[in-house]
Amino acid sequence: MGLTEIRNVCPVSLDIPAEKQEKLHNRWHPDIPFAGTIKNGETVKIECVDWTGGQIGNNDSADDMKNVDLTRIHYLSGPFEIETAEPGDVLLVEIMDVQPHDKHPWGFSRVNGFAGVFDKNNGGGFLDEIYPTAAKAIWDFEGIYCTSRHIPHVKFPGLIHPGILGCAPSAEVLATWNKREGELIAANKLDRIVAQPPNPENVHAGSASEDIKAKVGREGARTIPGRPEHGGNCDIKNLSRGSKVYLPIHVKGAKFSVGDLHFSQGDGEISFCGAIEMSGVITINFKVMKNGMADLGMKSPLYLPGPVEPHYGPGRYLTFEGFSVDHHGKQHYMDVTVAYRETTLRCIEYLRRFGYSDYQVYLLLSCAPVQGHVAGIVDIPNACTTLGLPMDIFDFDISPTGPAKKLDMGSCAFETGVTEGKVTKGGANSEHSFGGGLTVKETSVVEGLKEKVVGS
Amino acid sequence: MGLTEIRNVCPVSLDIPAEKQEKLHNRWHPDIPFAGTIKNGETVKIECVDWTGGQIGNNDSADDMKNVDLTRIHYLSGPFEIETAEPGDVLLVEIMDVQPHDKHPWGFSRVNGFAGVFDKNNGGGFLDEIYPTAAKAIWDFEGIYCTSRHIPHVKFPGLIHPGILGCAPSAEVLATWNKREGELIAANKLDRIVAQPPNPENVHAGSASEDIKAKVGREGARTIPGRPEHGGNCDIKNLSRGSKVYLPIHVKGAKFSVGDLHFSQGDGEISFCGAIEMSGVITINFKVMKNGMADLGMKSPLYLPGPVEPHYGPGRYLTFEGFSVDHHGKQHYMDVTVAYRETTLRCIEYLRRFGYSDYQVYLLLSCAPVQGHVAGIVDIPNACTTLGLPMDIFDFDISPTGPAKKLDMGSCAFETGVTEGKVTKGGANSEHSFGGGLTVKETSVVEGLKEKVVGS
Amino acid sequence: MGLTEIRNVCPVSLDIPAEKQEKLHNRWHPDIPFAGTIKNGETVKIECVDWTGGQIGNNDSADDMKNVDLTRIHYLSGPFEIETAEPGDVLLVEIMDVQPHDKHPWGFSRVNGFAGVFDKNNGGGFLDEIYPTAAKAIWDFEGIYCTSRHIPHVKFPGLIHPGILGCAPSAEVLATWNKREGELIAANKLDRIVAQPPNPENVHAGSASEDIKAKVGREGARTIPGRPEHGGNCDIKNLSRGSKVYLPIHVKGAKFSVGDLHFSQGDGEISFCGAIEMSGVITINFKVMKNGMADLGMKSPLYLPGPVEPHYGPGRYLTFEGFSVDHHGKQHYMDVTVAYRETTLRCIEYLRRFGYSDYQVYLLLSCAPVQGHVAGIVDIPNACTTLGLPMDIFDFDISPTGPAKKLDMGSCAFETGVTEGKVTKGGANSEHSFGGGLTVKETSVVEGLKEKVVGS
Amino acid sequence: MGLTEIRNVCPVSLDIPAEKQEKLHNRWHPDIPFAGTIKNGETVKIECVDWTGGQIGNNDSADDMKNVDLTRIHYLSGPFEIETAEPGDVLLVEIMDVQPHDKHPWGFSRVNGFAGVFDKNNGGGFLDEIYPTAAKAIWDFEGIYCTSRHIPHVKFPGLIHPGILGCAPSAEVLATWNKREGELIAANKLDRIVAQPPNPENVHAGSASEDIKAKVGREGARTIPGRPEHGGNCDIKNLSRGSKVYLPIHVKGAKFSVGDLHFSQGDGEISFCGAIEMSGVITINFKVMKNGMADLGMKSPLYLPGPVEPHYGPGRYLTFEGFSVDHHGKQHYMDVTVAYRETTLRCIEYLRRFGYSDYQVYLLLSCAPVQGHVAGIVDIPNACTTLGLPMDIFDFDISPTGPAKKLDMGSCAFETGVTEGKVTKGGANSEHSFGGGLTVKETSVVEGLKEKVVGS
Repeated sequence: MGLTEIRNVCPVSLDIPAEKQEKLHNRWHPDIPFAGTIKNGETVKIECVDWTGGQIGNNDSADDMKNVDLTRIHYLSGPFEIETAEPGDVLLVEIMDVQPHDKHPWGFSRVNGFAGVFDKNNGGGFLDEIYPTAAKAIWDFEGIYCTSRHIPHVKFPGLIHPGILGCAPSAEVLATWNKREGELIAANKLDRIVAQPPNPENVHAGSASEDIKAKVGREGARTIPGRPEHGGNCDIKNLSRGSKVYLPIHVKGAKFSVGDLHFSQGDGEISFCGAIEMSGVITINFKVMKNGMADLGMKSPLYLPGPVEPHYGPGRYLTFEGFSVDHHGKQHYMDVTVAYRETTLRCIEYLRRFGYSDYQVYLLLSCAPVQGHVAGIVDIPNACTTLGLPMDIFDFDISPTGPAKKLDMGSCAFETGVTEGKVTKGGANSEHSFGGGLTVKETSVVEGLKEKVVGS
Repeated sequence: MGLTEIRNVCPVSLDIPAEKQEKLHNRWHPDIPFAGTIKNGETVKIECVDWTGGQIGNNDSADDMKNVDLTRIHYLSGPFEIETAEPGDVLLVEIMDVQPHDKHPWGFSRVNGFAGVFDKNNGGGFLDEIYPTAAKAIWDFEGIYCTSRHIPHVKFPGLIHPGILGCAPSAEVLATWNKREGELIAANKLDRIVAQPPNPENVHAGSASEDIKAKVGREGARTIPGRPEHGGNCDIKNLSRGSKVYLPIHVKGAKFSVGDLHFSQGDGEISFCGAIEMSGVITINFKVMKNGMADLGMKSPLYLPGPVEPHYGPGRYLTFEGFSVDHHGKQHYMDVTVAYRETTLRCIEYLRRFGYSDYQVYLLLSCAPVQGHVAGIVDIPNACTTLGLPMDIFDFDISPTGPAKKLDMGSCAFETGVTEGKVTKGGANSEHSFGGGLTVKETSVVEGLKEKVVGS
Repeated sequence: MGLTEIRNVCPVSLDIPAEKQEKLHNRWHPDIPFAGTIKNGETVKIECVDWTGGQIGNNDSADDMKNVDLTRIHYLSGPFEIETAEPGDVLLVEIMDVQPHDKHPWGFSRVNGFAGVFDKNNGGGFLDEIYPTAAKAIWDFEGIYCTSRHIPHVKFPGLIHPGILGCAPSAEVLATWNKREGELIAANKLDRIVAQPPNPENVHAGSASEDIKAKVGREGARTIPGRPEHGGNCDIKNLSRGSKVYLPIHVKGAKFSVGDLHFSQGDGEISFCGAIEMSGVITINFKVMKNGMADLGMKSPLYLPGPVEPHYGPGRYLTFEGFSVDHHGKQHYMDVTVAYRETTLRCIEYLRRFGYSDYQVYLLLSCAPVQGHVAGIVDIPNACTTLGLPMDIFDFDISPTGPAKKLDMGSCAFETGVTEGKVTKGGANSEHSFGGGLTVKETSVVEGLKEKVVGS
Repeated sequence: MGLTEIRNVCPVSLDIPAEKQEKLHNRWHPDIPFAGTIKNGETVKIECVDWTGGQIGNNDSADDMKNVDLTRIHYLSGPFEIETAEPGDVLLVEIMDVQPHDKHPWGFSRVNGFAGVFDKNNGGGFLDEIYPTAAKAIWDFEGIYCTSRHIPHVKFPGLIHPGILGCAPSAEVLATWNKREGELIAANKLDRIVAQPPNPENVHAGSASEDIKAKVGREGARTIPGRPEHGGNCDIKNLSRGSKVYLPIHVKGAKFSVGDLHFSQGDGEISFCGAIEMSGVITINFKVMKNGMADLGMKSPLYLPGPVEPHYGPGRYLTFEGFSVDHHGKQHYMDVTVAYRETTLRCIEYLRRFGYSDYQVYLLLSCAPVQGHVAGIVDIPNACTTLGLPMDIFDFDISPTGPAKKLDMGSCAFETGVTEGKVTKGGANSEHSFGGGLTVKETSVVEGLKEKVVGS
């Protein structure tokens, strides 16, 4: 007699610390016990905490962002047993809906997320050499739309999605991960952290016994990177409502986990926790495809996006081009990462003309639904990428028609001691000219930030 | 009394060698003389030769592809003087149309282009370590659609565009290019060519005097890479009909050039000359934006796509995920290039199940309108990219529903001595497993090719 | 400190009869008292009952549908006072979200709506001469998608929207309505009801006094038709999430009302209450545009759709053509209504081949997001319309490739005594041939229904 | 060895009168001889003259439009024999391309079309009671785009398509047409022509003998209306490049004809010859589906649109609503035709504020790619339709933000003696108020036209 109710297999509390809730965990490991069982073919609701487990507040300071404890993040909901699932099968995950959480204890936070620029010493993002300071923006959700008091004159519908979903690795897959990432760490000569090895600090293994928990601490893979064998933290903005994701299954029962919900994200999620992070509930239908990995020739997840993505028409995307020549004028060989970084800088320079600070644009590009494309990657030595910015998310005209009129853009939230009031000429961008004599003169940088760079 | 005719400012002949035509050239240099003058606001037609200048034939052998003389390529139409253009202005180039050439001497070639996999010793592509042999496909054009006898069961409308367009560098910009690319070449320790320095061999400087031509040969920038200061060979598939491109102007009169027309291309143009190359005619409207570079805060070109791109709906793109773990199982640090290469391999493995050879898919991905996105690039150590394949270009169902039925897919064109008939197990893909014990068994490789790899 | 909560200005109960709730009403009249006050610029939530006020059950019989009391329908939420609104202003209504109701008392009905074919004696629909029997389908909602046990092999995302929204008429506008509709009724020679005059039976005037209620009963406009001066029951399927609707204001405070929420509807809503009707909550932002009617030259509402409509790509719409020759072979003069009716019959005939009954298709076309276009309306004597059916809502291939394979399609819900089991050849469609000798032979009709036709 | 050339099966001359060219004809009749033979599976080019056969000039007077001889129009290319086609089969017509003609004798006309408002005495259009005077606009084609000196500030890409295509009727189908349209004519009590019966005047039957020609003149169906049995003049704007049309076949060899090419058209083609008419060439692939009519349950043509339609995003369509209350305030019963007429008037009133004359908007709506939808057609007595106007075809902002600023819009072409200079208050729109006291005051009408109305 019809659908009566969609079962909630993972009620979570926003009042109780994440590490005390048995249906959450923060490592990938085959021995974490099942948090529940889902039938093959069933649709269920799964509640999720935001990826910091509530470390960030709805306020106008980025100090909480700066002080995030990265060993206490990415609490995932699960792992769930999917009936009939066996290694070699594929789990077809159809995302029926994602919604912000309805029961946040503070009331207001229920409709707020955040997009943060990390402090360099605490992870850092894609442009952290140029923009090293912690900053954040709080976003208000009204139905499908979000706006931020920290980035005015912008409104857009969320391309809402989970940042993380996947099935547990087998012991063998896990060993492979630890070996290859360990080799990268061992070989590292960069002045930065290149990967996160297993770390027992603050490990949360769900309802595991102390013995298992200790083992998970020693061996469990960190949740930060996505990985080819199962997906995980792939941060694909288009895995939104209506998507069908095909996930490899490595252990009996699949042990599916999900979390790190995003109200919206731009391609690249460039400022690290740059998506609009939120707690919420995801509704999923699960189906097992027996022998799917061999049948589909599948080594990594694949997916079909849903039919309800926001769409603006191709002509409404102002598109920036970037090449693998960095902002110091150095030529790199076919480096798509450098090219995409330059592309985002071109966009920052463009939007700065309207009165936005660079930090505001940096935050915006990481969470608005910008399209980051690989364009040409075979014409030595320059890779070329593009970034498409939907013009219709602004309530004023940003099209390239001539000089821009500056608007009052307020400020995003900074860490204590930094304000956007101290703006000066020069700074990061004064050294930013790759070719020829026609330097674009207008640059700006936060003075306090510049001093910080000099001082650090 | 209305429009009477659109002026053709660049008639070219497909019978006369490109190097003998004064309105063509194959270097970027400010001293190449104007090939004609265009009014500010005028719409004109510009004919273009294909990028090899006619070195490739409509046949079933890739030998011509293998033997392409790379010093005799990329003959561009121009440079054109745009009236009133001054350094610091921006040239607004509106692409009103691009069409295949109507007057090819051989009759049949008029409606044919090609997409080629280069021989590794002659440039090479994105996957040349895995697929080292020269191969090609000939495409027939019927109106907006193309098909290939070398890649059956596929038909798609062209997202037709110029691979190369830009204004001439100033002497200062040119010097910057030569310096920074020279430094890359000097520092190179890879076992491959990383950039092409100026080379007087087969230089073509349009109607230049011998003195100027010699200077252009010594100093002129090669046309292979795109460059941030002017665009050039950016190979952006969406610069199609209806697009408005905003180009920096570095010299008086702009000296605009265009060429390397593509009937279609996938994001990345992964097999080097992977787009469907053609001769044809482009119709452009030109407008000068005075002081545009400063007004727009512009260092690199930007553009607005046109409204007539083929569109399939988001749910019609089967999307593959790839990470910066290479197919030998090695972990790379945040390398988008590696991730995108892996993503294309996932797609090759998927389509192989339907009977296509790897070379056919490689050719297809470089010229069909696949969407290559930067997904997540901040979750150390794994960059994640996606490749969206429009399912509707196939005349059979490629959706992930289970085991695939192999169809008769014929063969693409190979160099002499290589055939797809000699298929064996093993080869490049047998070493292709990054994690765990669940290796997908079904692999295939051209035996002749494998031997070639071993032998080379 | 950010958004704390979106105010709910209209809590409704699904347990208490609609006619007993003071924030609901079922007539358009300027004297119905305000149900609450909303600030200019405010975003609020407004709960709505389904348009029958709960007369329909989640069961497999259409008897309740047949017996709906049409004097007790269309209970609207409101009217709300919008601060600062004056006659001549325009109310900008931005639909931030629409969601099915979360607190239905029966549990299961919360995620269910219905699409019904009315009994001819009780209103009737667009094709009621051909399909005269009451039938219905119950739809289950799972996130953005709906499915029905009564119409198998179909799933689609809701283009969710309010069927009715508008501001109250002034006394003068109301008098105009009553006069012109009264003239139509007076002149009626058809054997059917052509309009619904004011009717005091079961009038609900919100919190009005008995005197006012009696006046509203005598004068108040019925809610069934939309009307040009204010919109009302316009049933525009694209007034969905993200839309901005511009509504004329006729009375001080605007007196805005909304209701008749639809999870989805096809263009035309052809089976009368054909949309998927539901109770739910709509989130709206209100802004007053002073002097907007004159400034915009506006006599009727206009709107901008939102950016999140489901999209499939134009090539995924199987499109039927119909002309103003009816199914008895009679030529009508430029009659778009006849043309659209024929267009829907063409689609019914097409889908019938896969095993659906005509009633199932009729129900489906009224609630799935089909695109009904006016094509040509100037080529005497034939108007031409088209109906685009999104092929991707079916889980099997409906493309026109050859003979269809019949699937087990079960049955929709019928009134007592009618079943689809009694299927015979002939019936309504046997007389359905407009031209020439090439009659398509395969027709089907429900025997019980045919007898009913004969008997009625 | 690949495609060598696409065969042109219908070269036409723009210098020779249409009635003297044997591959053209202007009636539907089974006895018109084949104009050529096309293989099953073949792709061919077919040239077409514009639908007036060259009666209209590229000038600034509408006198030629006023004086068009309607017995000498709609010269179609064909009929072509499609090999293997038999009655009962379906002809799958895939439109590979449509392009304006390249060889027009006058040079300028080659890139020009026209959109005309007919003189009421010579056919008339959808709004001819309100706008009775002949007017026209000449459009210049530059690649995919068109602009008009007669309607400034507008540019849009053509949704290029044939207005007419279909297979010949059998003798039996033809007899049905003549009977049913004859009955309509016989029963006509309107003060206007309701259908065009067979008429031997200026009949053109291709290469027919005099006897056959006389028979075609007596019996042949006029080309003006589309008809359900074969399509014909369906004027569906989306039958554009890439579309697949499925046409019923009634005679051996199919006898396929095509003509009346449109560079662009709005839904409804409201001003009769309102599309942008042109001569040109259409490229078509033909396939015969044996027994297709029965297999597909098909009585009228159906089609799948192509994937390259211009697309703007749903939020870029400013959408007007209209109801079946006419502009005299009269209530009609469920009349979609009235509703759509009112919808177009709402749009005219809106755009008039920017300085356009009503005639300019009327012309624009008939040829720009406006979306005309059937919205609600079951809520007695009001049908509701919508008209979506793509805002991005204007080079200024038409969004509903407040009072409009009038621009210099010049004038469209009128018949001799009428100019837009004589503008006055009042006229057609002064009587245009359906409800209440809030009449929008700003109206305008061409004085000369008003006098003409009074005088005629």
